[in-house]
Amino acid sequence: MRFARRSGESGVWCVDDGDRLSAISGGPGRGWERTGETFSPDGFEYAPPLEPGRTRQLVIVGWNYAEHTRETGSALPPEPMCYPLSPLALNAHLCDVVVPGRVSHVEHEAELVVVMGRRAKNVRAADALDYALGVTCGNDVSARDIQNKQGFSNLPRAKTIDTFKPVGPFLVTDIDFSDLPITMRVNGEVRQSSRTSAMLFGVPELIEFITSTTTLYPWDIIFTGTPNGCSRVKPGDVMEVSIEGVGSLVNTVVGG
Amino acid sequence: MRFARRSGESGVWCVDDGDRLSAISGGPGRGWERTGETFSPDGFEYAPPLEPGRTRQLVIVGWNYAEHTRETGSALPPEPMCYPLSPLALNAHLCDVVVPGRVSHVEHEAELVVVMGRRAKNVRAADALDYALGVTCGNDVSARDIQNKQGFSNLPRAKTIDTFKPVGPFLVTDIDFSDLPITMRVNGEVRQSSRTSAMLFGVPELIEFITSTTTLYPWDIIFTGTPNGCSRVKPGDVMEVSIEGVGSLVNTVVGG
Repeated sequence: MRFARRSGESGVWCVDDGDRLSAISGGPGRGWERTGETFSPDGFEYAPPLEPGRTRQLVIVGWNYAEHTRETGSALPPEPMCYPLSPLALNAHLCDVVVPGRVSHVEHEAELVVVMGRRAKNVRAADALDYALGVTCGNDVSARDIQNKQGFSNLPRAKTIDTFKPVGPFLVTDIDFSDLPITMRVNGEVRQSSRTSAMLFGVPELIEFITSTTTLYPWDIIFTGTPNGCSRVKPGDVMEVSIEGVGSLVNTVVGG
Repeated sequence: MRFARRSGESGVWCVDDGDRLSAISGGPGRGWERTGETFSPDGFEYAPPLEPGRTRQLVIVGWNYAEHTRETGSALPPEPMCYPLSPLALNAHLCDVVVPGRVSHVEHEAELVVVMGRRAKNVRAADALDYALGVTCGNDVSARDIQNKQGFSNLPRAKTIDTFKPVGPFLVTDIDFSDLPITMRVNGEVRQSSRTSAMLFGVPELIEFITSTTTLYPWDIIFTGTPNGCSRVKPGDVMEVSIEGVGSLVNTVVGG
């Protein structure tokens, strides 16, 4: 099932019925039924496909695809590189990514994003998928000029700039996401192309590792790392993350 | 005025009336009045002095006291080193700091913590204090064995371990915190002793810097950095952060 969240004060969960988005009572992970109200996908104003205000943690995973790790000049990590960051840079499908004046070098990062469904602490990899609600597309937009100052000390700030974490358009709850094609296009041109099976540490291992020190709660999310092919974007560029069966997340870069 | 938050489902804001904690309607930063109910400070169960569920961002500032920066072997930072992390490791006065099995080297860090009162974006230092609601004591407990892996890449994870971010006991809203004595005692022995005026970047400059890229919201908090004297603690040790006029935050280290 693919869920979308309509933005605004009258925000509502919808299910994707193909030509229409059908409003539901309740929401993903709890009971729901169609209310009868429907919306056209054209002009639909997407929010992040998350329960508003419930996401308190956004974990980033670095160097989780071998070829991307090599392109950054880093060694393969012996264990997952996980950053528990704040979620306030979250942004939605079709919304602008706004580059502040003090930032000069911005790059895209196409990623599979996992949405947690249950409180998870000391979870074993074999059980981990029971704690996930579903997945969506994410773009881990990064200010490289900030990130690369003083080693990686500035990575959290470089990745927590307002609007730099678009996710969406859909939360997909019933898909095997272990081997899906993932692509980034900039202005229609393919820049990144891989499969989620190329992750060094798969989603179950990531959840086991993170929850060995940090509890994950419902609606917390994990950006699972990006494949090789990261490249620079500038105002006017249109970025599109596509994951087969999950959706296509489109955002335009604008100046601040 | 010093506010404390009583924990639990019947949680309530109180004001410190010296020998008693007096429950109030409303809370800090909005209207309030005493309800008539009072509590003894003995046995009072403290929550973090924050509106429950409203803190979505916990910004850590690194290397913000010159002598601490030197003791870590680092150069003085040319600009603030700010980490926008998740708030899920928050903990309260008198609650245990629980060290997980995979962590072997834990250190204390006494810090002044600023609580934001208004949405703040592109705020100038001269105006910044208008956006702060008040201050409290914090202990930026850190797993150095995780933190020092692979440069500082693991700093966010090392500082976001469950229970590793105690704050409290009081939110103090009417104090000039620019030059207060700050002390850390372990089992009664002084380990850190400095003044908040020794910060390399003061609170106004920190708020200007952070909000140039990342919006701060009401109840977001800033750990403003620690003075020199960080030292190792082990299960059974009692840590006490004291800031004159703000309070004394006490937490015991226990094994996981």
